[in-house]
Amino acid sequence: MNDFAEINKQQWLIKPIGYVHSPYKQKFGLARQPGLVPVAQARIELLPTFNADCVRGLEEYDYIWVQFVFHGAINDGWLPLIRPPKLGGKEKKGVFATRSPHRPNHLGLSLLKLEEIIIADTVSIYVSGIDLLDQTPVIDIKPYLPFVEAKTHAAGSYAQARELLQVDWSAEALQQLKDFFLNDEFYQLVSQSLAQDPRPVHQHHKDKIFVMNLYDWDILFQVNGSIVVVTMIRKHIEV
Amino acid sequence: MNDFAEINKQQWLIKPIGYVHSPYKQKFGLARQPGLVPVAQARIELLPTFNADCVRGLEEYDYIWVQFVFHGAINDGWLPLIRPPKLGGKEKKGVFATRSPHRPNHLGLSLLKLEEIIIADTVSIYVSGIDLLDQTPVIDIKPYLPFVEAKTHAAGSYAQARELLQVDWSAEALQQLKDFFLNDEFYQLVSQSLAQDPRPVHQHHKDKIFVMNLYDWDILFQVNGSIVVVTMIRKHIEV
Repeated sequence: MNDFAEINKQQWLIKPIGYVHSPYKQKFGLARQPGLVPVAQARIELLPTFNADCVRGLEEYDYIWVQFVFHGAINDGWLPLIRPPKLGGKEKKGVFATRSPHRPNHLGLSLLKLEEIIIADTVSIYVSGIDLLDQTPVIDIKPYLPFVEAKTHAAGSYAQARELLQVDWSAEALQQLKDFFLNDEFYQLVSQSLAQDPRPVHQHHKDKIFVMNLYDWDILFQVNGSIVVVTMIRKHIEV
Repeated sequence: MNDFAEINKQQWLIKPIGYVHSPYKQKFGLARQPGLVPVAQARIELLPTFNADCVRGLEEYDYIWVQFVFHGAINDGWLPLIRPPKLGGKEKKGVFATRSPHRPNHLGLSLLKLEEIIIADTVSIYVSGIDLLDQTPVIDIKPYLPFVEAKTHAAGSYAQARELLQVDWSAEALQQLKDFFLNDEFYQLVSQSLAQDPRPVHQHHKDKIFVMNLYDWDILFQVNGSIVVVTMIRKHIEV
């Protein structure tokens, strides 16, 4: 089979092998790296061309590499220098020294925990710890090889796990969870996502109300120091 | 900047950011995974568009992800099922459960040790432990993030480090090293490459003479049980 064309020696046409179905419809609130929000699950649905044969034996691995296109960033192009949010937006790093979506070719790479593979009319691969937007085009899946890829003592520059915020829920927000029949998994997903501090670098004033969108829900919250307070859950409103 | 085109929502044009300069001109003898032949070094030369700014801060990382195109495998297309060499060619695995080059989109991913970055007219990134052919097109470089990507205890299926062969050199081959002014680094590169057992699965008869090509040299060797004997070094002859 050869549907993937080499235009010439200097450009290639790539096509999706499937798409991500994720609770994250917008970039705000999305984990900045995979694995930081363990309960965040997604389903990768392969296109019909890629049948059960293509994933035979994949279930023997705990983690998989998902290669994807940063489809939301393509129109923005790329930049040689990036201001990583972790450095407070003050310092610039070269694009190849970051994982920014604003890179040449807009190729993304996420290590995700493999939860389950379901074979029906199409192949669905369930993964957790995701940092992927809904509808992300997937262009490759590979097994994670710990014997060559687990370099525990490697230097990782400024890219360390950040300190988590404490997440408190108001009585009103807890009541709204009940009213909308939202379960504990949703509660955990919101709590873990907010603990990562999704606020943009320059928006840290304490009275501001932020709105994060998950599935069809808006989560309203405020941040005071290292404490997040969830103030309201409501049906998503397009702004 | 936006030279990287979205053809439509279902295909994208990707272009190289640079090319690999490697001692491995042919697939035979190439390490099957990165890191297995630590002395194998390569230089990744970025295209002039990607200047020193693009790699600022990359030197703070020990390892980098190199994403590339399996340019030698494009004409062969892809297969849903692959026979991994490590399983003796007997068992089939799904293409997405392998790192085979015969995959949709022909995208490769190697974790390489970053040795040095040299800025001259172009940017050169020196890496070791390579499993990359000479002239491989590189499409992205990313820092390795140990805090999310080092999963030491992850299940890795059959993909384990294999037992190394013992490599002996004949007196003739050692003399040829001297005659050709080949240094200890070359000796180590040959020894480490052969210890990986580069033979194809179905060619294990003990009298067969194999020829591996490195730089401009041919290395002739035989294998008897778990012992490799290097019998001759000569200038490369095109077959």
